[in-house]
Amino acid sequence: MSFNVDEKIPSFDGKLLKLSHNSTITHTKMLLSLYLPHQYFEKADNKVLPVILFLSGLNCSPDNPTEKSFIQPYANMYGFSVLFPDTSPRINDVRLKKGIGSSFYLDATENPWCKNFKMYSYIMKDLISNIGKEFPKLDTDNMSICGHSMGGFGALMFYLKTPEMFKSCSAFAPLTHPSICPGENKFFKLFLGSAQSEWKKYDPCELIKTYNGPKRPILIHQGTGDKYYIGKELLPEDFVKASEGTILEGLINIKFKDGYGHNYYLVSSFMAEQCLFHAKYLGLI
Amino acid sequence: MSFNVDEKIPSFDGKLLKLSHNSTITHTKMLLSLYLPHQYFEKADNKVLPVILFLSGLNCSPDNPTEKSFIQPYANMYGFSVLFPDTSPRINDVRLKKGIGSSFYLDATENPWCKNFKMYSYIMKDLISNIGKEFPKLDTDNMSICGHSMGGFGALMFYLKTPEMFKSCSAFAPLTHPSICPGENKFFKLFLGSAQSEWKKYDPCELIKTYNGPKRPILIHQGTGDKYYIGKELLPEDFVKASEGTILEGLINIKFKDGYGHNYYLVSSFMAEQCLFHAKYLGLI
Repeated sequence: MSFNVDEKIPSFDGKLLKLSHNSTITHTKMLLSLYLPHQYFEKADNKVLPVILFLSGLNCSPDNPTEKSFIQPYANMYGFSVLFPDTSPRINDVRLKKGIGSSFYLDATENPWCKNFKMYSYIMKDLISNIGKEFPKLDTDNMSICGHSMGGFGALMFYLKTPEMFKSCSAFAPLTHPSICPGENKFFKLFLGSAQSEWKKYDPCELIKTYNGPKRPILIHQGTGDKYYIGKELLPEDFVKASEGTILEGLINIKFKDGYGHNYYLVSSFMAEQCLFHAKYLGLI
Repeated sequence: MSFNVDEKIPSFDGKLLKLSHNSTITHTKMLLSLYLPHQYFEKADNKVLPVILFLSGLNCSPDNPTEKSFIQPYANMYGFSVLFPDTSPRINDVRLKKGIGSSFYLDATENPWCKNFKMYSYIMKDLISNIGKEFPKLDTDNMSICGHSMGGFGALMFYLKTPEMFKSCSAFAPLTHPSICPGENKFFKLFLGSAQSEWKKYDPCELIKTYNGPKRPILIHQGTGDKYYIGKELLPEDFVKASEGTILEGLINIKFKDGYGHNYYLVSSFMAEQCLFHAKYLGLI
């Protein structure tokens, strides 16, 4: 067993596992949560259960979405599992403090980050393949991606870079153009250095220009009362504009929600709609 | 306006108001939350919307249930509002520190608590009547009560003392016999002094003996993996035993849930069932 089961928590009709493992990519212990709906415990066959990868926001952990997103009832309704990675390695080292919970899911190239802050490779090359081996009923070849805020950025970024890995992508209040926002690109500078060409390798507004996956909508819920939206740190309009002339033109489906904020009240309120969207592309309905 | 609206948060189809007001009973500013479902904003008539009073647990605040209980979708489904009082006055006074968030919803008689820790009277004589005046569409004469842990104790305690105030009562993992548990009666001693006769005035296992309300079930969800249940601090079996020979004999409906813990994963998982129960007695179905 390469994952330790630190807690096993019944929730709705399934079980939430709090897991930890030692990653050969981040060279640290990594925390994560995995929600298994009731179907997991009933079905005998291997590779029957699709996976939704849910990425949490800045300074969050897997606990925020497992406690507040209310994805569990839909996991049971449609029959998918949910994998919640952590937002960074958690190392008690004062030099790394600024980055804890704030990795932006990037592979850092700068010191002191480049040794451990390899979240992009960790998720793609370590977590997903090993979770599939450890829990053989999970079908990581039938996977979708979703996230909130910095995790919404992560969902767009992973999907646009490797659409062959995911059946569908959605996000709640994502950062769509972080390389031009001072509040966000300070982390890009920290992890990737000053060359903006490096930042663009992770920016959804840039990545969409070279996206070569299926012509499939991306679903986004954005509250109009969100202070980061109002403060022009999320910039979903830039993302729509960037999609013009690309394969995804007309397919960026942004649902603006009157007065909703940058919080889990947005996420829980529209989780049903995002799960229905993913269930369709995961072949569950 | 005797309540300040500190925040107005869209959630599901309704709005969550974070409120504060100065209580003439606790002589402090009191915090609370109020969830108004979409029906509140659509119905024109006065006194149309029933209220569920939800009491939070030890060291919690109204934020725990509004973020994690998942009651909002059912408030919208059936058309009830939810009132979430705080768990104590919040006074920055080192002498009162032990009681912050831990009032047990009692009227304290001992120093230094007796000046401000009058939560029983605050809820019954200040909060409920004033919220009904301030939000005239709320029908506080058609009200049910519910709570988690210490708040589950509170729900049982208020209901058994004044059944004429409530249409129905339910609880998640309530403390049902706190006067005999050292972990809980240390608070009774703090607030009420050493005379156990005073403690009994608030203990559900005592109050049920003199209950004179309707013959109506009380619904309780209790996880069998709950460490406080296992540690004999909740004692729902005592509550069933205490009901023998009373009006409520055979009506204490405890649903034991295999492996569930003492957390909001229990609450959110079975909130649908408790809301259905209350909707019936509130005349909503």
